[in-house]
Amino acid sequence: MSAVLDLTCELIHRASVTPDDAGCQAVIAERLARAGFVIERLRFGSVDNLWATHGSGDPVLAFLGHTDVVPSGPAEAWASPPFEPTVRGGRLYGRGAADMKSGVAAMVIALADFVEAHPHHPGTVALLLTSDEEGSAVDGVRRVAAEFRRREQRIDWCVVGEPSSKERLGDLIRVGRRGSLTGRLRVAGVQGHVAYPDKAKNPIHGFAPALAALAATRWDDGDDAFPPTSFQVSNINAGTGADNVIPGELRVVFNFRFGTASTEESLRERTEAILREQGVDPASNGNQLDWWLSGEPFLTRAGVLREATIAAIRERCGIDQPELSAGGGTSDGRFIAPLGAEVIELGPVNASIHKVDEHVALDEVERLPGLYRSIIERLLALRA
Amino acid sequence: MSAVLDLTCELIHRASVTPDDAGCQAVIAERLARAGFVIERLRFGSVDNLWATHGSGDPVLAFLGHTDVVPSGPAEAWASPPFEPTVRGGRLYGRGAADMKSGVAAMVIALADFVEAHPHHPGTVALLLTSDEEGSAVDGVRRVAAEFRRREQRIDWCVVGEPSSKERLGDLIRVGRRGSLTGRLRVAGVQGHVAYPDKAKNPIHGFAPALAALAATRWDDGDDAFPPTSFQVSNINAGTGADNVIPGELRVVFNFRFGTASTEESLRERTEAILREQGVDPASNGNQLDWWLSGEPFLTRAGVLREATIAAIRERCGIDQPELSAGGGTSDGRFIAPLGAEVIELGPVNASIHKVDEHVALDEVERLPGLYRSIIERLLALRA
Repeated sequence: MSAVLDLTCELIHRASVTPDDAGCQAVIAERLARAGFVIERLRFGSVDNLWATHGSGDPVLAFLGHTDVVPSGPAEAWASPPFEPTVRGGRLYGRGAADMKSGVAAMVIALADFVEAHPHHPGTVALLLTSDEEGSAVDGVRRVAAEFRRREQRIDWCVVGEPSSKERLGDLIRVGRRGSLTGRLRVAGVQGHVAYPDKAKNPIHGFAPALAALAATRWDDGDDAFPPTSFQVSNINAGTGADNVIPGELRVVFNFRFGTASTEESLRERTEAILREQGVDPASNGNQLDWWLSGEPFLTRAGVLREATIAAIRERCGIDQPELSAGGGTSDGRFIAPLGAEVIELGPVNASIHKVDEHVALDEVERLPGLYRSIIERLLALRA
Repeated sequence: MSAVLDLTCELIHRASVTPDDAGCQAVIAERLARAGFVIERLRFGSVDNLWATHGSGDPVLAFLGHTDVVPSGPAEAWASPPFEPTVRGGRLYGRGAADMKSGVAAMVIALADFVEAHPHHPGTVALLLTSDEEGSAVDGVRRVAAEFRRREQRIDWCVVGEPSSKERLGDLIRVGRRGSLTGRLRVAGVQGHVAYPDKAKNPIHGFAPALAALAATRWDDGDDAFPPTSFQVSNINAGTGADNVIPGELRVVFNFRFGTASTEESLRERTEAILREQGVDPASNGNQLDWWLSGEPFLTRAGVLREATIAAIRERCGIDQPELSAGGGTSDGRFIAPLGAEVIELGPVNASIHKVDEHVALDEVERLPGLYRSIIERLLALRA
């Protein structure tokens, strides 16, 4: 069994359901320490983070990944147990096979192989791992990035080994991500009997025009990198359960996914203006609006990292021009980009992630370390 | 202790929380049987109903009431235990004191006294009691009325002993009630991730324009007897609880309180037309709309019963012209009126009903049997 497949299986075997690392990082730390890396454990709250570096000074090329996985759901729904890595039909099955233990294993192997071949490479190569990417993502890379800012730890280039590919390895690089902004709104009313609406104040009716206006708003037109901003109400709840009671409050949760055509501030201001125009002052009359910014949007434009990655894909995957996308959900890249880093995401096919019978093609697992190593060599070794 | 106060206390002592009769009707049946009434028990499902009659043929004057009460809530919130009738400061305290065990007791005493004084009165005097007025009201007077329709049991006049008065006994007669129509709407969507709205269909957004339009609609202008129809959404719920999931369905419950300016059919048709105009077909695409008519509106216009009641109030309460109202919630009168009966509601002050420390003034309890008896005599005995 190859080194990368062996390590992937060892990681899958550890049921590291978010935010539990289940010892994955210790295995990796041991491997990288043996290869000459300096290991730092950064534990925040109940979250394990690992920062492994080799070399010193600029430029800094960091790989980024997570050891946690989403829950498997009922194990009996899987063709083979989710935490027993199983090979069949040219694929490796198991929770985390694609998202992202094969990517993590490949990054580790690529880094170890690279420093063995180039012990005196210029600058720094590094690996940053967290066990809280799939969960609340508060004590993971968000906290590490804050610590890096405090230390003035710079990162020039960041390769995130998340499963980016659509149909085959290397057909899509993620060069950015939309930002995510969540609002939690409480609209206050006055509870009462439906037979006496004059003695009550129905917050559902009070919010109705604002809801219609918010849902009908076009927030921006997007730009060359990002689609138009999307607004979605994910939860709306009011009512006592009884048919004959006007509820005393309404609770609404909504989320923006936004590109660089809008900002957190512009979306907050426009939302609050629409609410006020439609008769719901979000800051008085018992109403309340709380905001949570999950991440700013980021975009890595044409540059050294993008060129090196495209060249590596051409060499290792035989794909001439991968799709450059800034779509999809959020990733931990959102926390590294604001440090001034170019960030790209490149990893295996993502069709089965978060699903039953998650899997990755064996030949992709085998090719991943070489792909990552090619990027490292183009950025550091070829300069030496 | 007077007979009416004694019986009221005995009924309060029985904790007949809806739909449990707790033996109240048996006490009453025994009392009326002794006075010469024919007793019929009509038990439907878990609901006790009592139909007691004296005399025969037309005209039929029926008193209507319920022995069930709403729950007391935490007993420690009461100044005296809710099911221990307690006199203090000229008031009788206890759950059901006003709604409507004093009224029931007074109807029983009035009927027994009347037939003792007029054993050969013309027509029929009757008492109809249920133990399911405060609850679902399915197996109570609704079912009894259906049975009466089957038997061709007619009722000419119906006096409901519900607490109608505002500040003192007899200051308000309820001469009608609004109808109540409830709609339960399911709006189907397609669940998905908020980052991929194109792959989902948000039922909250789909319903938003319809909600705004429904809440803004003026359904009618009311008429001389009824205020304009009121529409209230009592419950709205969608969402998985997660912030990042577009929900797969939305559930909405709404209620109309309507007078004679609208009908069940007109409200249903207009609601469905507004939904369709606003892009929510209530009968396709997985959507569903179920209707429940709690009761048609009814109105007792000037006539024999109203005149007799006003004259009795003038005689017994010294009030020259009581307010004639068709406001408030629903009552069981809604089921009797469609049988062709004139229906009025007259009972003690309702300020404390359904609340902690429910009470009734002692002097009102004492005056109620005479008030009801005066109505009976004006309608039946004076004709003899």
